[in-house]
Amino acid sequence: MGSIRLDMTMSLDGFIAGPDDNRQAPLGDGGFRLFNWLDRRNDPGPNGQMYAEAMATGALLSGRRTYELADHWQGDHHNGVPIVVLTHDVPEGPQPGSVRFATDPQAAADQARVVAGDLDVMVHGAAAGQALLRIGQLDQLELHVVPVLLGKGRRLFDGLPAAQIELDLVRQLTGPPTDPPEQQVMHLRYLVHRS
Amino acid sequence: MGSIRLDMTMSLDGFIAGPDDNRQAPLGDGGFRLFNWLDRRNDPGPNGQMYAEAMATGALLSGRRTYELADHWQGDHHNGVPIVVLTHDVPEGPQPGSVRFATDPQAAADQARVVAGDLDVMVHGAAAGQALLRIGQLDQLELHVVPVLLGKGRRLFDGLPAAQIELDLVRQLTGPPTDPPEQQVMHLRYLVHRS
Repeated sequence: MGSIRLDMTMSLDGFIAGPDDNRQAPLGDGGFRLFNWLDRRNDPGPNGQMYAEAMATGALLSGRRTYELADHWQGDHHNGVPIVVLTHDVPEGPQPGSVRFATDPQAAADQARVVAGDLDVMVHGAAAGQALLRIGQLDQLELHVVPVLLGKGRRLFDGLPAAQIELDLVRQLTGPPTDPPEQQVMHLRYLVHRS
Repeated sequence: MGSIRLDMTMSLDGFIAGPDDNRQAPLGDGGFRLFNWLDRRNDPGPNGQMYAEAMATGALLSGRRTYELADHWQGDHHNGVPIVVLTHDVPEGPQPGSVRFATDPQAAADQARVVAGDLDVMVHGAAAGQALLRIGQLDQLELHVVPVLLGKGRRLFDGLPAAQIELDLVRQLTGPPTDPPEQQVMHLRYLVHRS
């Protein structure tokens, strides 16, 4: 079976969106700055490698908020892979594409691992990532750390209990220095220790 | 003149101390975990290099809280270099060693640059670092990022306004993989863009 991996872009001060994120402005004020590195997603360098790895995952596990802010990805995040949405309230009525719901993190993790088969599961959303961390079901973190301070916004790590979770930094990649400053980013992969 | 450089150790989730930090427990619950890398401070590797660079600075600029929690370093942080403490309320009575006070960040920065001469100024303390960032007087960040999540505690970046500050990652060092996991740390040096 594959790994469950949180894949998120954050500023050095830990924000994944600017202030006042909402459905009209899903990245909040100034949050678009974080995703300039994806302009290089089809380049052969590390940014392209990150994108290709994300696209090679076999399922997406998303929090409900992310799912709504992203307008459900019209039911297809990439290549039609199954999308498992972790939510307290399963919406009524048909949902687009390959979306299914789970009301607790363990069920979401189990379901995502099964539908991903041998491939990895990509996790999107701060709340979903933290929920999986709390129950020991997050295997890896892939963080794209942008060299900027946003000051305010939505944090990636904000709701965890005071409990030490050890990590191993297993990969560290940066773009070529010839990339323009606004597309520079540091990609960090960590394995999460099981307690 | 030298640079003013914030030098801080933080967890991957951005904490510089665990919860409930106070004078009896200046690093809070579990915060000692962050400083295991200093066990290697006299080794020839990156951890030793970081320590040597810190000890080669010509002045310390500290926030008042850090100054108190550290018990004033008995007046001598390292090599007797001048210590400039940023505080709202200058304490009465004699202070130990080479301590002087400044009541606003600009005065603290000016004073620290002068007393450091040609050498760099090391900044300790989240509040002092943020105060200098806000007025454009922080030149560099040297962050020692420990592969651990603490969940709760005191954050390095918590009080900045919603204003984008661009950085350049100019150096990235990790200890040799032969170091034990608890002494692994990633050292990141950023230059702060002046707006």
